Amino acid sequence: MGLVVQKYGGSSVADAEGIKRVAKRIVEAKKNGHQVVVVVSAMGDTTDELIDLAEQVSPMPSGREFDMLLTAGERISMALLAMAIKNLGHSAQSFTGSQAGVITDSVHNKARIIDVTPGRIRTALDEGNIAIVAGFQGVSQDKKDITTLGRGGSDTTAVALAAALDAEVCEIYTDVDGVFTADPRVVKKAKKIDWIAFEDMLELAASGSKVLLHRCVEYARRYNIPIHVRSSFSGLQGTWVSNAPIQQGDQKVEQAIISGVAHDTSEAKVTVVGVPDKPGEAASIFRAIADAEINIDMVVQNVSAASTGLTDISFTLPKTEGRKAIDALEKARTVIGYDSLRYDDQIGKISLVGAGMKTNPGVTAGFFEALSDAGVNIELISTSEIRISVVTRADDVPEAVRAVHTAFGLDSDSDEAVVYGGTGR
Amino acid sequence: MGLVVQKYGGSSVADAEGIKRVAKRIVEAKKNGHQVVVVVSAMGDTTDELIDLAEQVSPMPSGREFDMLLTAGERISMALLAMAIKNLGHSAQSFTGSQAGVITDSVHNKARIIDVTPGRIRTALDEGNIAIVAGFQGVSQDKKDITTLGRGGSDTTAVALAAALDAEVCEIYTDVDGVFTADPRVVKKAKKIDWIAFEDMLELAASGSKVLLHRCVEYARRYNIPIHVRSSFSGLQGTWVSNAPIQQGDQKVEQAIISGVAHDTSEAKVTVVGVPDKPGEAASIFRAIADAEINIDMVVQNVSAASTGLTDISFTLPKTEGRKAIDALEKARTVIGYDSLRYDDQIGKISLVGAGMKTNPGVTAGFFEALSDAGVNIELISTSEIRISVVTRADDVPEAVRAVHTAFGLDSDSDEAVVYGGTGR
Repeated sequence: MGLVVQKYGGSSVADAEGIKRVAKRIVEAKKNGHQVVVVVSAMGDTTDELIDLAEQVSPMPSGREFDMLLTAGERISMALLAMAIKNLGHSAQSFTGSQAGVITDSVHNKARIIDVTPGRIRTALDEGNIAIVAGFQGVSQDKKDITTLGRGGSDTTAVALAAALDAEVCEIYTDVDGVFTADPRVVKKAKKIDWIAFEDMLELAASGSKVLLHRCVEYARRYNIPIHVRSSFSGLQGTWVSNAPIQQGDQKVEQAIISGVAHDTSEAKVTVVGVPDKPGEAASIFRAIADAEINIDMVVQNVSAASTGLTDISFTLPKTEGRKAIDALEKARTVIGYDSLRYDDQIGKISLVGAGMKTNPGVTAGFFEALSDAGVNIELISTSEIRISVVTRADDVPEAVRAVHTAFGLDSDSDEAVVYGGTGR
Repeated sequence: MGLVVQKYGGSSVADAEGIKRVAKRIVEAKKNGHQVVVVVSAMGDTTDELIDLAEQVSPMPSGREFDMLLTAGERISMALLAMAIKNLGHSAQSFTGSQAGVITDSVHNKARIIDVTPGRIRTALDEGNIAIVAGFQGVSQDKKDITTLGRGGSDTTAVALAAALDAEVCEIYTDVDGVFTADPRVVKKAKKIDWIAFEDMLELAASGSKVLLHRCVEYARRYNIPIHVRSSFSGLQGTWVSNAPIQQGDQKVEQAIISGVAHDTSEAKVTVVGVPDKPGEAASIFRAIADAEINIDMVVQNVSAASTGLTDISFTLPKTEGRKAIDALEKARTVIGYDSLRYDDQIGKISLVGAGMKTNPGVTAGFFEALSDAGVNIELISTSEIRISVVTRADDVPEAVRAVHTAFGLDSDSDEAVVYGGTGR
């Protein structure tokens, strides 16, 4: 039995009862002979409450102090969890990100892990303890300031520790049973995925699937750490994310042609209309955007109308960055030389993901046919080797996702029934 | 203009409004040309709420994790305070106890400061920042674990930092205007004390005055750091605690014969009845108490009755320790050989404190006369060089304090009026 890293999110430790339930699960793993490292998020809404307090004292809280503030959240949950474990008769020690050796760069609020030196964790484990580590936080290499890793940072903490400690698996406990072939709130017949390859999971995460964040999967792939996403409530097998297919009973789980359908309605579309179709134009547009530190998603350029020599360039980006992008482009208007800007935040993105589509030429056609049959108009198209994404009206998204899910045979048999908490296909 | 350490308690930073008010006061000190170090407690009831959470997950929370938990409180308040200061256009950085170099022993929940190495604070100050430091917390020298200093620990943090940084003064901001000649809730005519010597303040603190804790005054005396206790609400001059009298306008404030009257109703009295009057008896009683790690206050032994050769030994201790003390004495009954134990938690203690009583022989008599005139029965008496304490019925305490306060001429003239927020004698 090797070392296991378990990560519990805020909803799993929302109150004293949740903490006690999680403590029991941790102790079970320890009793099964594992060395156990636990990464924990802040309780329930703690982080949001702290953000609210910060906004009350300062409209623009600074990075360093904001991180100092937010890290109080995990400090509370990890100490309580260690107490609850001790109360079950097992020894546990809690460690801040800094104590656990999570070394980051100095970019406050969204720091990146650059090294993990878990000497104290190793010692605690060797002395028979369960180690509880604060997720989401680290300490900056140069200034020794407290940093946070941004949204979903606790998952990254867990994977990074699993890599540094050479863990067998990184278990991500959450409030759903795993990764599904589509969002079960939209597609009632969505199925839990038993196994998915890192590449497909990366595309799903990038396309709007919320269960695992892109950065965490990227980290796990780089260090080849299998992730097991599962429910902290049900205790059932969840979704394995790894390089190689898993064994289930006598059978090896096969790679599916299509892993799933993801959607995202958090983006907006900017169209730069009437751009001269000559070298350097796209560059000047996206230089203006990059200088404003805005991350963009899809970029599409249509062919130019021969009569005018002008073209349109569209891109999507988080709605929250919309204002900033428009401001940046307006400032750069004379440099770029476009006609006008269009901003549309009533869009949605639907993505079909699957490594199998590389060798199955009908996938793209089937995708568009399904959308057409559902009466959904396509506004933009963008593809990668294992993903096709389209932009549609936001209102069309639920219907479009269901249509595509059915068309690619992803719907579960209605007889099998249990989707949440079910054992899958 | 030198360096000033300011300490703000939980009631001063109870909410966002409080934090903003305190931020303004800090910025004023900075504008006046001081280097400013601020020690801050957890907001309002945060610490109690965290203790409540701990009790929900574990009936006996362990020291290490309990400290990890509680230190989240100051982390929140200090980060918010730094943000609020920045919002006023001044630069501020917050530091945990560990970052501030507050090194303690390893006794969790009531650690003692053994060294202060404020290198990062010094750097922050030299770079023009206001330094905000978490009160109440430190890091253990041997294990590098987070520790807390126990009740009132933030005051000690402030004084210790003031000593290490060679500050001009340590300002303790609180919700009252200073130290009074008696508790103003009991004695309406109590006066604010302009200046009090360390020795008298130590006795007052030991006798039930809550404004400053004994440990903090002791530390200030050892390093000769003047303390200025004042209100974070009114901004008026408060009480100076120091070695040498302060100057006020053209006049030096004189040492009063009597500094004040303190009272304490948090103690209980244990009487060990029928103890053989021979060497070693008292020792065996207090060895049993000490082994149970109980701190006691007054100890009184009456002369033995000649007929029996037996004596009674009484002592007082915090009510919270009562059960433990009785248990310890019952266990040691055969060793000690007493008749019976009496436990009484309906007592109160009244203490008259003043360095002047050394050279004013009438003080003790006057004290007893005042109590007698008020019809208050004395149950125990104990004295030091500059203090007389008596134990009475708890019910008699308010009347007794008022009588003594009046008898020693401490009442303010009713014409002067303003007691809270007044300028004193």
